[in-house]
Order: sequence, then structure tokens, then C-alpha cells
Amino acid sequence: MAEALKGALVVGQSGGPSIVINASALGVIRTAFASEHITKVYGAYHGIDGVLDDKLMDMDEAGLIELDKFMYSPASALGSCRTKMPDPKDDDTKYRQVLEVFKKHNVRYFCYIGGNDSMDTCNKISKYMKSVGYDCRIMGVPKTIDNDLFGTDHCPGYGSSAKYIATSIMEVARDAAVYEKGAVTVFECMGRHAGWLTAAAALANVNGHCLDFIYLPERDFDMDKFISDVKSCYEKNGNCNIAVSEGVHYADGSFITEVAASATDGFGHVQLGGLAAYLAAEIKNRLGLKTRGIEFSLLQRCAAHCSSGRDVEEAYMSGRAAVESMLEGTTDKMVGLECVRYPHGGFDSHTVLFDLDKVANFEKKVPLEWINEEGNNVTDAFIEYALPLIQGDSPVRMRNGLPDYTDYNKVFAD
Amino acid sequence: MAEALKGALVVGQSGGPSIVINASALGVIRTAFASEHITKVYGAYHGIDGVLDDKLMDMDEAGLIELDKFMYSPASALGSCRTKMPDPKDDDTKYRQVLEVFKKHNVRYFCYIGGNDSMDTCNKISKYMKSVGYDCRIMGVPKTIDNDLFGTDHCPGYGSSAKYIATSIMEVARDAAVYEKGAVTVFECMGRHAGWLTAAAALANVNGHCLDFIYLPERDFDMDKFISDVKSCYEKNGNCNIAVSEGVHYADGSFITEVAASATDGFGHVQLGGLAAYLAAEIKNRLGLKTRGIEFSLLQRCAAHCSSGRDVEEAYMSGRAAVESMLEGTTDKMVGLECVRYPHGGFDSHTVLFDLDKVANFEKKVPLEWINEEGNNVTDAFIEYALPLIQGDSPVRMRNGLPDYTDYNKVFAD
Repeated sequence: MAEALKGALVVGQSGGPSIVINASALGVIRTAFASEHITKVYGAYHGIDGVLDDKLMDMDEAGLIELDKFMYSPASALGSCRTKMPDPKDDDTKYRQVLEVFKKHNVRYFCYIGGNDSMDTCNKISKYMKSVGYDCRIMGVPKTIDNDLFGTDHCPGYGSSAKYIATSIMEVARDAAVYEKGAVTVFECMGRHAGWLTAAAALANVNGHCLDFIYLPERDFDMDKFISDVKSCYEKNGNCNIAVSEGVHYADGSFITEVAASATDGFGHVQLGGLAAYLAAEIKNRLGLKTRGIEFSLLQRCAAHCSSGRDVEEAYMSGRAAVESMLEGTTDKMVGLECVRYPHGGFDSHTVLFDLDKVANFEKKVPLEWINEEGNNVTDAFIEYALPLIQGDSPVRMRNGLPDYTDYNKVFAD
Repeated sequence: MAEALKGALVVGQSGGPSIVINASALGVIRTAFASEHITKVYGAYHGIDGVLDDKLMDMDEAGLIELDKFMYSPASALGSCRTKMPDPKDDDTKYRQVLEVFKKHNVRYFCYIGGNDSMDTCNKISKYMKSVGYDCRIMGVPKTIDNDLFGTDHCPGYGSSAKYIATSIMEVARDAAVYEKGAVTVFECMGRHAGWLTAAAALANVNGHCLDFIYLPERDFDMDKFISDVKSCYEKNGNCNIAVSEGVHYADGSFITEVAASATDGFGHVQLGGLAAYLAAEIKNRLGLKTRGIEFSLLQRCAAHCSSGRDVEEAYMSGRAAVESMLEGTTDKMVGLECVRYPHGGFDSHTVLFDLDKVANFEKKVPLEWINEEGNNVTDAFIEYALPLIQGDSPVRMRNGLPDYTDYNKVFAD
């Protein structure tokens, strides 16, 4: 056990929000509150930008009732940013700023909740602090609906978005099938390079078939094959439901909507609709079927009313583990999850640590062996992987028939 | 009390589905099962089309476990249609077909669950049966997310869609506000002529402000005023969230997207995106702000995982009341809801009956006095009206971490 380091802790949130990013922050904050070594808990306003600008929120002032709501409130309650830190060898200005603020508030613990880029920020700050001999412990807490982080079995945030996507597809597919004459519905999920969220659409079939095809960016997209898939499915069933990843691309790497934008009229009108709308129009034009494109857009990363109870718990657990590890002397790591999947749905997860070096800037994709040969669906291996992650109800609390989300009153430190 | 009429009952669902249309069907079916006068309960496959084609499902064969799921399953479990019945004076072919099927199966009770058009169908069949002296009782059960039916305080289906819209806006608005640089988000809700669903967006502010403007089809839309509203809001708050009804139109009655389609390039590319995408692009072009359009599309009428418990109960109650009334000798009516709103949120509702004549083909709009003077929001009177309708949790049952919706095995009568 390393010598106890006495000082303040800063927790920050970075990158696109997730449904459970505040549960992770709460895990950090509550564990820090409980430690005799941590003298003060600050929230960084808009991630690393808040550190750079010395805009630190005093988390004592948030109040316990408001903090309780972090457990189930979507979006980044502390504020987020997309700031990338430069290589300190090229320019160490920002690192010196961080050091100055850390010194000013005697910050000895820093937790950053985010995805690949945020882990890169963590890693760089950690290395810099070591290089200048400033004693502090730095830990990354994983967060990304994209589920693309190295090492960890899955990322907090993914299970809840997966649950929302599967639930919504189950509902819409049933709605779209009520008339005698069927329809083709295209669902667009987030995921530029990794198809995890789109693959989650397969979970919509667990309680009865309703989704027919899934196209991921891990495989090249072939428009003719796609149209022929839809045609034969519709001819057979009188309906067709399809999930596509925003990042699907042709064999030459160009994104579908990019090609569509330049091919149609060059005025950029295609930006009006996304991929789902474009593919729906393509199907309508080529096959003359009734179609509809549905883009889950931001809904899929903030639908906390439909979160996975397990995901929320794991997010909290990850935040807690980060602080506990730092108190034990660990630094320069990311918390990850290691899981055991027992037969008949049994599942266990616990936290493990990964080197930030390895996590930073790596994107984990859906294994190709989990995609079927035709490239238009996922295999049962994916279902076995993902189904445990969406279990358990959302812990959301209601007031006036609506979620009682936090809008806490930010009080800044001097 | 009229003489008891012995015979079969047919229940049908018509028009666009709602979140609670199956709860209404269940109210009809269970009440019919319990009556000694009703000899058999049939579901009409795809509404009146199922009667015309003699495709009646034997509801005994559905099984009680599967029927239980009707209470919380979205979409029309019996199948729906958009068939409009002609004036029998012009052509009575279809009416004679209905009569023949009614006679064949000794149908003496007919319940039709739907909106304005369905009530018109009900009304015409009722009048025809009376004119040919066929003794049967006919009753309409209201269903429409549009909430535009005559007489009734509100329509089953509306409360749940309203709850989903308000909840989703609460979530997305928080997500869209996490970065230092804000965004403008445009939410598009259904409602061609009546703005009830869009007005429900105002409920997103009940637990803390997040929605800034609401534009309904009840008032003419002025693009310059709209842009100026957004501009001043963004300048003040650094963010702007807007709900628009798909049916917003200029003073001359033309829909915004129609005008956009003809004005931009004439190739009809605008169909790729809906109104939300178009307005988002307009704001981006004119004000240079980061924007996003979110269309709730079918999601808003099938999100049973987020339904209002009160809405589900009232839907069931309406179906039950329809059968009870017919058993008491009533015919040619629609069930409606009469409500009392007590101070401090107290609320009571009970069923009443309305003449089908009055209901058929009438559209009830949002009262103009519930829209603010500027035409960019609703008043507190709307909140007092709508808030009671979204209370109570969804009774949805889960299996495998996902809703356990019905996909019941349809068994047809001989």
C-alpha cells in the first residue's frame, strides 16, 4: 500500500454524453467524500477546459439530494468538452496551466470520464505530471455508447443505449406491421467506425422476431446486395425492418451519404436527411415500396428513462473503483470491466485496470466472426455477449409523471 | 334496461395505432367474455376489412396469458386498416357484405376502436343496420394520439404519446447543452391539423425549464418571426430547443415543407428529411448556429415502455364501458371521457357517451386561448389540462430485459 496522498480530487466528463456518465461521476464523488485523504472534491466545468480555465465546481455545494439524481440523470451534469491535448513536446502551455491549477487547489487526484480521446488526455497529463515531479494520481473511467474501448469487456453507457435501441425497434416494427400492406423501415444508429450500437438492434429479436437485417461499418456496404436483401425479405414477409450504422461505407471507404450528396445534385441537400432517410428513399425509388427512415439521433444516448439497471450499477462501480485504486497508490490506468457469462444467462462483472497507453486512441470493433457470412446480420455469439448488458430496470425517479433529472446549481470554487 | 340480445361480438381496430389501443381492445374482450349474452368474441382482422372479408379471429383461442399482454403492448394487435366506407346511398355493396358476415356469425355487438374516420364507419354501419332492421348494437371506442375527437375531454392514446414526447425532450435538451458552445434543436411532432401532441412538449418544462418554443398548426407560421425567436433565445441562453408540429403552415395555408420542396430545387429532395431537418438547416443557414432536427416519427405513437399508467387504465375503461353500454341496450354512440381537475393536481375521470353523428369527421383543435399571444408557446391552462394525463407508470412487463409484447397466434373462425 502506497503512502496516503492528501489533497483534493478533480473529476471531469469529456466527449459525447452517455446515459450513465453521471452515475460514474457519482461513484467517484461519493467515494471521494468518504475518504479521509481527499480534502475536497471538485467537478471540472466542461471537462479539461474547466481545469485549464480554473473553473472548478465545489461538489460539496451540490447537495446530497441533487447528487442522488446523478445516479439516473442523462447528459454530462458537470459539462463536457471535445478538447484534445497537444503533444507536450510540441507545446506544453496547456500542461503548465493544468499544473498551476492543480498546485493552486492542491489537486492530487484526477479522474477523467470519457472515451478514447479522453483516455489520451488522461495519459498525456499523467506522463507530464510524472515528468515534472508533481505527485498526483490520475485515472480514466470509461464511458462511451460506442463500446469501442480497448481491453474492457464493454463500456458503461453501451448497455443502456443498446436497451433503448432494441426496445424502440421492437415497438416501431410492431407499429409498422399493423396494415395489410406492409412497409420497409430503416433504423439508423450511431457508430462511425464501430458497429456495436447497430448490432444491438439484434436484441429486438430476443422476445420474438421483428428485425430482419443489420449492416455494420465493419463490413463493406453493397447497395445492390442491400436492395436485393430488402426485396426478397419483403416478398417473403410483406415487411422489412433494417438497422444500419451511420458509418456504413462502400468498398472504397466512402460513406454512403457522402456519395449520395455528391451524386444527387451537389447542392448538399442530402444533409437535410441522414442515412436512414437516404436509404429509405433508395428503396422506394428502386422497389416502389412504402418506406420510412428513423434516425435515433441523440435519443439513443440520453434515454435514461429506458436505461439498463446493470449498466447504471457498473458505471457507478467504475467510478468508485477509480478512486479506490488511486487511494491505494495506483495511477496512469483506466478502469475496465471483466465479465463472466455463465450458462443460462448468469453473469458477473468486476473492475480491472488497463494501462492508459494501450487504451488511448484505439478503437475496438465488432469481431468479424460475430457478423454473418452475408454481412447483413450478427450471429448468436453477439446476442450472448450483449444480452446480459441490458438487464435490470432504470433506477430513474419520477416527479409529476416525468423523470426527476438533476439541474443542479453549480457553485464554483474561489 | 333493454331486452338482452344474444349473439357474438366483433371488435376491430382502425387507423394509426396508439400505445394503448390494445388496452381498449382488452377492455372490450374481457367484458364480453364475462357476459352471458355474448356467445362468442371475434377480432376483426385489419379492422372493417376483416369483417368485409369474413376474416374474424376467435379471441378465445388467443389464450389468457397472451391477452394479458394486450394491456401494455403497442400497435394494433388485431391489425388495422384505413378503409373508408362509402355513403350507402351511393353504393351499399360493402354494407350488404357486413350484414351477411354479421348474420353468418350472429354478430349482435360491434365495437370499433379508432379516430374520426373510424367513428364515421361506425356511424354509417349503425345507420345501415337500423335501416335494414338488423338488430345489433354498435359502439365506438376512441383512440387517437392526435387527441382531436369531439366531446371527450381527451382521447386514450394521447397521454402516453405526450409523456414520451415530454420525457424525450427533457433528455435530449440536457444532452444538447453539455458543451460550452450550445446548439439549436428542433423537435418535430405528429399532428397535421391539431397541435395537441406538439403542445405536450411544454410538459418537458414541468420539472425544470428546457424547452423554449412551441409552434402549432392552430396559428400561422412566420419564418422570419421564427428565426428571430431563435436568435434572441440563443443570444440570451446559448441554447435553444423548439417543438414544431408537422402541420405548421404559412398564412396562405401551405405547409412549410411543401413550399421548401418547390422552392429549393424542384427535384423533391426535401422528402429526404422532414420538417425538423428543414427548419434546422434554415436556422443554420440564416444564423450560422449548430443545429439538429429530431423527428419523433413512429416512435411517439408506439413507445409503450414509457406509457402513462392513467392512459392505459382509461383506455381499458373505455373498452369495458362500450360493452357494458351495449349490454344495457345502447347503440350508435362513442364512449368518451369526462374529467374533473381538482386543485393541487387531483383528477377524476369517468366515461360518458357521445352521439356518433357528432363525433364522425370532426377535428377538435387546441383552443386558441391556450396559445400565447406571440404564437410561440402554450399557456399554463394547457399544462393544467395535460399534466394529469401523463401520470402513472407504464404497466409494461419485461422479459430478458426487454418488453414482453404480444405477438399472439391468430386463429380464425371458420
